[in-house]
Amino acid sequence: MSSDSSTAPQAADHPPVQQLQTELLQELGPDVVVTDPAVMDAYRTDWTRDASAGQPLAVLRPRTVDEVQAGVRWAAARGIPIVPRGAGSGLSGGSLAVDGALTLSLDRMTAIEIDVATRTAIVEPGALNAQVKAAAAEHGLWYPPDPSSFEICSIGGNVATNAGGLCCVKYGVTTDYVLGLDVVLADGTLVKLGGQRVKDVAGLSLVKLFVGSEGTLGIVTRAILRLVPTPPPPATLVASFPTVQGAADAVVAMCARVRPAMVELMDRASINAVEDYTRMGLDRSAGALLLVQSDAPGEAAVAEVAVIEAACIANGATEVFATYDPEEGAGFVAARRAAFPAVERLGSLLLEDVGVPVPLLPTLLTGIEDIAVRNGVGIPTVAHAGDGNTHPIVVFDAADAAMARSARKAFDEVLALAISLGGTITGEHGIGRLKRAALSDQLGPDVMALTLRIKDALDPAGILNPGAGF
Amino acid sequence: MSSDSSTAPQAADHPPVQQLQTELLQELGPDVVVTDPAVMDAYRTDWTRDASAGQPLAVLRPRTVDEVQAGVRWAAARGIPIVPRGAGSGLSGGSLAVDGALTLSLDRMTAIEIDVATRTAIVEPGALNAQVKAAAAEHGLWYPPDPSSFEICSIGGNVATNAGGLCCVKYGVTTDYVLGLDVVLADGTLVKLGGQRVKDVAGLSLVKLFVGSEGTLGIVTRAILRLVPTPPPPATLVASFPTVQGAADAVVAMCARVRPAMVELMDRASINAVEDYTRMGLDRSAGALLLVQSDAPGEAAVAEVAVIEAACIANGATEVFATYDPEEGAGFVAARRAAFPAVERLGSLLLEDVGVPVPLLPTLLTGIEDIAVRNGVGIPTVAHAGDGNTHPIVVFDAADAAMARSARKAFDEVLALAISLGGTITGEHGIGRLKRAALSDQLGPDVMALTLRIKDALDPAGILNPGAGF
Repeated sequence: MSSDSSTAPQAADHPPVQQLQTELLQELGPDVVVTDPAVMDAYRTDWTRDASAGQPLAVLRPRTVDEVQAGVRWAAARGIPIVPRGAGSGLSGGSLAVDGALTLSLDRMTAIEIDVATRTAIVEPGALNAQVKAAAAEHGLWYPPDPSSFEICSIGGNVATNAGGLCCVKYGVTTDYVLGLDVVLADGTLVKLGGQRVKDVAGLSLVKLFVGSEGTLGIVTRAILRLVPTPPPPATLVASFPTVQGAADAVVAMCARVRPAMVELMDRASINAVEDYTRMGLDRSAGALLLVQSDAPGEAAVAEVAVIEAACIANGATEVFATYDPEEGAGFVAARRAAFPAVERLGSLLLEDVGVPVPLLPTLLTGIEDIAVRNGVGIPTVAHAGDGNTHPIVVFDAADAAMARSARKAFDEVLALAISLGGTITGEHGIGRLKRAALSDQLGPDVMALTLRIKDALDPAGILNPGAGF
Repeated sequence: MSSDSSTAPQAADHPPVQQLQTELLQELGPDVVVTDPAVMDAYRTDWTRDASAGQPLAVLRPRTVDEVQAGVRWAAARGIPIVPRGAGSGLSGGSLAVDGALTLSLDRMTAIEIDVATRTAIVEPGALNAQVKAAAAEHGLWYPPDPSSFEICSIGGNVATNAGGLCCVKYGVTTDYVLGLDVVLADGTLVKLGGQRVKDVAGLSLVKLFVGSEGTLGIVTRAILRLVPTPPPPATLVASFPTVQGAADAVVAMCARVRPAMVELMDRASINAVEDYTRMGLDRSAGALLLVQSDAPGEAAVAEVAVIEAACIANGATEVFATYDPEEGAGFVAARRAAFPAVERLGSLLLEDVGVPVPLLPTLLTGIEDIAVRNGVGIPTVAHAGDGNTHPIVVFDAADAAMARSARKAFDEVLALAISLGGTITGEHGIGRLKRAALSDQLGPDVMALTLRIKDALDPAGILNPGAGF
């Protein structure tokens, strides 16, 4: 998989690399500026492991917003692009290094402050999602967004991609928890947007515009995040279905009556991959498995589980198991989270993130099976079914060039299928550099033009994360 | 109270009014174009009853998106401004008519379609909030946002202002329920943003940018709204406190542990105004009254009410009353909703909408009392206390010019106080035309500049709702 954006547009006009690096070192000091290629190497790629990642001019590792501003001003004055970077756990190539550009890593800005009275966390972008959760938990509070990578992904990256996760079917995604942002704009200006107030409609919704903008409009240096009281421990229900259609129908039925805290689906191929890996006794013959949690308080969980169970049985579940033991439930969630490593053992992967309106899940999943067969690749799929957001995983042998081409073709066909169903090519990972080609197919020319007008207004020289986002 | 924006900037360059009206009638037909001054009069003002509202060139009442586009194209070609208008229930003057401009009323576009399987409502902008709620309820579903004006305000206006309400302390505001928007841009282009998929991070968060933009970036012609299952009927708790400080401390304490579905506060002046009006036996000597609802399911409501009650008692509540009878609870909510008509009997009103971080509520309310005394006006205050969003109501005798000036001075001082406390000058009503002067004090020059760059990118001729929003 390769991107077409590893070359900075104006690279040819610049002074020699060494001269620029010397200037940078004078401006920001050796503690901030990394130019050693061996050290820089760790900042070139992300979880896409994309071999086409470029060679940056330097990696900046600022510790303060002043240093971020100084770096941006230095780059802006010279028209040198900047690739912002959080923890490097992105799955769409949004932080892949660009030849001749600065990679601006926020990994040293990790402060977290919990304000109990306002129930907010004031967080620097390099802090990990799990660290924010842990800091909030010390005060009986909870930061809900939970991407599967929560232990290793940064809040800055979460904000950049508007990251989702497993609990967002009930609790929403990152943007629902961002009350304020400090952002360094393309010219180095620092703007402070929003604040600790919960409701605020003064002026345009700028906080919301920056969330999900993948580093293309500004660089987030601080986020004010809303926290909520920790919910009760969840009850967990696992149900086997002969078909994906039955499982999807059960999801529609249960979500019309209750609000589960998690609604995950595994298809037959992913069930078998996980069972090969974990040997935990999953039903290999099932067409789909649903994993549903309820965090309704006290006895209400029993009533909610009953509604969920009835919806499963009414839609053809062959086996239903419910537990109120949080640890036992966590075991099933671990199985779901094991899908990615389980499938990773089978070959090289292309990870998708397509979404459709929930009732179209069976159409999407049946179509994906068909694409897999036609292209001679495996595509096990797990899904945040309550949101209609799926992760088909195209598995192939990278050493087999023809198969690698088939895999890429299958990947593109899945994107096209999602668009044809009124869906999206990315529900939570972002467009990054790897899905740009398909974006205009989803948005159409008028929305693309509107997007570029906003980009041009905020970053007229196009120095912020060129080649990413749109 | 007057705005400075009732004159269209380029009015002098236009052909005579009658010629323009004739052209418009030819273009759009007499069923869409209203030019009779008597009929137009009903479309000139909103709930601010601002006497400075201008005289529109014409009122357009399109029935279809094609007619909206035709109207916008006609105006864009001539540089004639457009004031979009929903139900005219705005409290900040966002839809006040502008001299020589078109008022584009969406009051005929009222279709509502409920899609049960995706739990969405597909709604035209003129549909009332209450009509959407009712249509959803027919399917056991709920559209949460509930501005106090929900029976008479339109979804288009709710989207334009990102309207809040009473339940948003638990369920969020309008933007949290908007999955998709159809928007006619300043040049007449129709863009379709988002859709029925719940999660979608492809491209910039354009849906979120248009929500709350007060008709300054485009005209919403359709919204796709997320619905949720109807929650259980609420339990209601009323608590009297000697001081606002005690009530606010109780709010902070309870919200750290549970998520009430409503947390309203009335100060002494508003309690007395309501008691004068309703004679329902409220405690006239109380410094503050809290009205809290829990919609936790089944027995869990008892546990949640116990937490809320304990928080009230621990913070000095002198009287606490809880009821699980939804009708009795609704009676108390009606008392809270009666605050505005109760105060309206006392004189002319300037209605504020300032917000602060919740722990600063006592500082804000004490400061408002001080401003009232110093300016010789009454300022009873009700608050969505769980969100820190307050509605101080400046009461004055409009026939007394000196007092009217004092009232305006008090109004401005309250805005300045909110800003000085890290708050906002509008939590849910919007900037409209009446709060523009204070906006830059809140946002600062850099954020204002950023705002105007986006405006210029989307509406370079400045024809969309000039003088409103920012």
